[in-house]
Amino acid sequence: MVKSIPYSAVKTEGFWKKRADINRESTIPTIYKRFSETGRFGALSCKLEEGMPRPHIFWDSDAAKWIEACAYSLRQNPDSELEKQVDGLIDRIAAAQLEDGYYNCYYIPCELQNRFTNRDNHELYCAGHLTEAAVAYYETTGKDKLLNVMKKYLELIIKVFVTDDSASFSTPGHEEIELALIKLYELTGEEKYKDLCAHFINTRGTSEKDKGTRDWTGPDYDQSHKPVRELREAVGHSVRALYLYSGMADLARHTGDKELIKACKALFDNINLKRMYVTGGVGSTAHGEAFTEDYDLPNDIAYSETCASIALTYFCRRMLLLEPDSKYADAAERAFYNCVLGGVSLDGRAFFYVNPLEINIRKHELRKKYYNRRENLLTQRIEVFDCSCCPPNLARVIASFGGELYTKDENTVFAHHFCKSTAEFDGIKIKQDTRYPAYGDVRFTVSGLKGGTFAVRIPGWCSFATLNGEALPKETVKGYIYLDVTEDEQIFDFYFDMKPRFVAANPAVDSDLGKVCIARGPVIYCMESSLNGGVKPGRISVDTNAVFGCEDDEETGAIKLTVKAFEDAESDKLYYDYTAEKKEREIVLLPYFAYANHGESDMAVWLRMA
Amino acid sequence: MVKSIPYSAVKTEGFWKKRADINRESTIPTIYKRFSETGRFGALSCKLEEGMPRPHIFWDSDAAKWIEACAYSLRQNPDSELEKQVDGLIDRIAAAQLEDGYYNCYYIPCELQNRFTNRDNHELYCAGHLTEAAVAYYETTGKDKLLNVMKKYLELIIKVFVTDDSASFSTPGHEEIELALIKLYELTGEEKYKDLCAHFINTRGTSEKDKGTRDWTGPDYDQSHKPVRELREAVGHSVRALYLYSGMADLARHTGDKELIKACKALFDNINLKRMYVTGGVGSTAHGEAFTEDYDLPNDIAYSETCASIALTYFCRRMLLLEPDSKYADAAERAFYNCVLGGVSLDGRAFFYVNPLEINIRKHELRKKYYNRRENLLTQRIEVFDCSCCPPNLARVIASFGGELYTKDENTVFAHHFCKSTAEFDGIKIKQDTRYPAYGDVRFTVSGLKGGTFAVRIPGWCSFATLNGEALPKETVKGYIYLDVTEDEQIFDFYFDMKPRFVAANPAVDSDLGKVCIARGPVIYCMESSLNGGVKPGRISVDTNAVFGCEDDEETGAIKLTVKAFEDAESDKLYYDYTAEKKEREIVLLPYFAYANHGESDMAVWLRMA
Repeated sequence: MVKSIPYSAVKTEGFWKKRADINRESTIPTIYKRFSETGRFGALSCKLEEGMPRPHIFWDSDAAKWIEACAYSLRQNPDSELEKQVDGLIDRIAAAQLEDGYYNCYYIPCELQNRFTNRDNHELYCAGHLTEAAVAYYETTGKDKLLNVMKKYLELIIKVFVTDDSASFSTPGHEEIELALIKLYELTGEEKYKDLCAHFINTRGTSEKDKGTRDWTGPDYDQSHKPVRELREAVGHSVRALYLYSGMADLARHTGDKELIKACKALFDNINLKRMYVTGGVGSTAHGEAFTEDYDLPNDIAYSETCASIALTYFCRRMLLLEPDSKYADAAERAFYNCVLGGVSLDGRAFFYVNPLEINIRKHELRKKYYNRRENLLTQRIEVFDCSCCPPNLARVIASFGGELYTKDENTVFAHHFCKSTAEFDGIKIKQDTRYPAYGDVRFTVSGLKGGTFAVRIPGWCSFATLNGEALPKETVKGYIYLDVTEDEQIFDFYFDMKPRFVAANPAVDSDLGKVCIARGPVIYCMESSLNGGVKPGRISVDTNAVFGCEDDEETGAIKLTVKAFEDAESDKLYYDYTAEKKEREIVLLPYFAYANHGESDMAVWLRMA
Repeated sequence: MVKSIPYSAVKTEGFWKKRADINRESTIPTIYKRFSETGRFGALSCKLEEGMPRPHIFWDSDAAKWIEACAYSLRQNPDSELEKQVDGLIDRIAAAQLEDGYYNCYYIPCELQNRFTNRDNHELYCAGHLTEAAVAYYETTGKDKLLNVMKKYLELIIKVFVTDDSASFSTPGHEEIELALIKLYELTGEEKYKDLCAHFINTRGTSEKDKGTRDWTGPDYDQSHKPVRELREAVGHSVRALYLYSGMADLARHTGDKELIKACKALFDNINLKRMYVTGGVGSTAHGEAFTEDYDLPNDIAYSETCASIALTYFCRRMLLLEPDSKYADAAERAFYNCVLGGVSLDGRAFFYVNPLEINIRKHELRKKYYNRRENLLTQRIEVFDCSCCPPNLARVIASFGGELYTKDENTVFAHHFCKSTAEFDGIKIKQDTRYPAYGDVRFTVSGLKGGTFAVRIPGWCSFATLNGEALPKETVKGYIYLDVTEDEQIFDFYFDMKPRFVAANPAVDSDLGKVCIARGPVIYCMESSLNGGVKPGRISVDTNAVFGCEDDEETGAIKLTVKAFEDAESDKLYYDYTAEKKEREIVLLPYFAYANHGESDMAVWLRMA
């Protein structure tokens, strides 16, 4: 069976090290401060004292993700002060756990009598995140206090949901615990956790108890509209969906369940071929934070939640364990370098929950003022949201990126992602020297794999690559080139050509008709008016034969592009016979992940073709 | 003073005769039937009997516009049966009029005690339409029953609103009566009607009593936000606005009020240069059926109410009387041949209230289903609306189009519009031989104007014209060429080149960026998927150097166009490196005014440029 090489085995440098440093120095403390101020951490004691805000049903999960992020960060950068902060939170949780194992910072003080009665109220989702945090913190520190809290709580959950079937519902309204249970199973080897995961997954979409009563959406909102093995299209709340699909892939890996694997593959293909933004964002609509239908990918009202894109990377990572196919790593890479990183400011202090691919401030204000439309557009990242799932989710992803790079199957090591780093596992050492994503040269120095195979992903975006100075043949096996390792220490020098590209969307995507976006390597670019003398991107058209200027950009760690384009000529008339008259002008493009870091601005990923 | 040449002096043939015939044979009877069925005509008796629907506050106006349309139609085609129907309605109205002159089919039976207390409830608007109907019916038939009813009612209105100032408000919440009062003044010469018009116009935006209490919009909704002489931008409910501006122009013509004329000109220019669709539609948003801001002209959610475009032609016609400038006739022509005619089906039986410039059925359904958007899209004309102002408004416009052609000033006759017709007035006879709008040749045969001047509008859309076979110089006086008439009967042979044109919009119109529309003469074209093998217009791009195929089209009375264009190539990928690969295909374009006559269909006026 293919196994993950965990983040703990990989020391990252370069681009991702810089992001991890910002994460550790700015993001994690910023979230700590904000969660403390908003009462999220105080609430963990489950006492509703005078002056404290009423906890929200998902506050446990916010704290849990922050703890998990700390666990990953502490592994590479021990920090006793931070560890003390985490221990303090865990002490609160442990002290508040009820005798029978129950723990939930909302239900205990607010309406304990109603626990396990409202499927929409995130209890199992919170338990899942706390389980993930417990596993991660135990793995880093060896401390098992939170782990034991969760084991005890899970005994209760097994009793209530399996043994007694006494809850008012059968499966989580917000999936997440499924993948957490597999993590705990993999840590402990205890079958009961895998069994509980299987119970939730197999029961989903089949239970009378779960027939919803929501009036504003159907059972597809939380993927309860049919048994999971029959799912073929990604529907409903996108984070819920992708956490479920991740859990399904996890379970299938341990059971070999062919029907489950078939569903997972179909769901991935549906997203990858029809329901994903070019930035790796998913979930087009704010209404239900949900997937809609094939090719419906509006840019200006895109929801594209940060957490959904993160969840997509989780699903991809798990699919890679089922089947080494570069389409999974390609999709994950698309999400990482675009939508996911775009969710946090370059200084690590502020966040986007929603990641549109177009910002037209005036249009948006006109729609609000005159057209009775209520969608909210944030044009600046903010430090905390009422629903603050994204910031700590980003923190845990960035702190553990090293875990994305490799998987291993018997004698084959798969390199999925490119990142300056050193990995050591199973007597094998792999060093990556690369300036990725700024440049496409990647030198692997592989030791300890003599007689084995080293499989390297050729990125889907790359149309020309060399290995040790020679052009690579086009033929790969599902996107990987398999290399025999014949030396004790062997160097593989890859070069992935990163000439900037004009990318088109399938013409079924109405929103992108007549437009291209600009990509370089895995990075998708955008044009902001703030960096272009105030010119609105809509007035610009690009010549698809144009040559780009490339410049190192320290701020983003990627390349800044310039290109000659055209600006539509002004006129004092409203309508006039068309003439091809246009002003030539150079435009500056920055990576999408760096948008909204240079003042409030109009922005567009997709630009018209001249 | 420049004077109108009324519809009664002009006998139309050709294109407009065909429309008038359909109007008489289909539209007027269809509306009669529908208004009878829905209770609108029964309600005129002001008795709320068992089983009758409760009348709406604007039903009087619906009936009045139908009567007015009949009056115009009867002038050219006497029809004793139709006249009897009208007389029957007038008898009902006269019988129900109260002793003190009051008449309103809603207030009398429903809440008489509240008359003149609710500014929003259309009483004066209804009185205005009934006055217009009374004038028109008297002019055609010499019958003065309705005229006397309205004179008596207006005495009451003068008492209540001027003499006693006893109403709860000072000016109409829905303007219309202003222009009606000028019509009555022009018929009777009685100053009191002009004075009442002046009272309403001068008081507007100044009265404490009119300070609104609506929570969903401000006083600009009904143009009460400032004194009318200070208005410079067209705002609020677009039909209300344009009826007001028409009344202002009417009044200014009789008073020479410079401040009022200045306001009218500024308002026209604001609309004409910044707030009008290429189809002559106005009022971008459904929310308040209103103007929004400069250059905000969305295509798919365009409101562009038929009545607003009709009201624009009223305003233009009155501005032409103030100042012969072709911009007014150009705008009116744009509205007539596109948005106005587009409001009724080719068979005259069904109507659009809202006239979008783009229909994308799937996009619309996705927005409703997944994005919580409630705008309604009609893709088929229907026979009656709850708010059925547009159908009878169309009927009266089409029945009286001949009145648009000429104005006269001392010894100068102005020809504003082109239409096969014969006009006789003041001893002058003008015959137009033309196939307009299908072809640009117009032969005027002018008799009885020897020694005078014949001024002909050179259409703004025309870049090449000849007179009697010689190219016309570019110089015109405000768009008119002034010709000395030296013969008893003189022929002026004009040719306005109608080569199809690609028209661009000002780049400040976001919705039209990168797009062109196709025009030929005054007619704007659209592409419908129903006539193009199901291909969605969004997938098509046009080569702006392409040559058009032109074909006579009996159904529309205009020209059908074909042109080579490109269809974006299908793909099985979602994103891919752009290649210029496109399928060439011929597309068929019909006049916008004929849209939605060939089955439910996607439609677009603006097409991408290849």
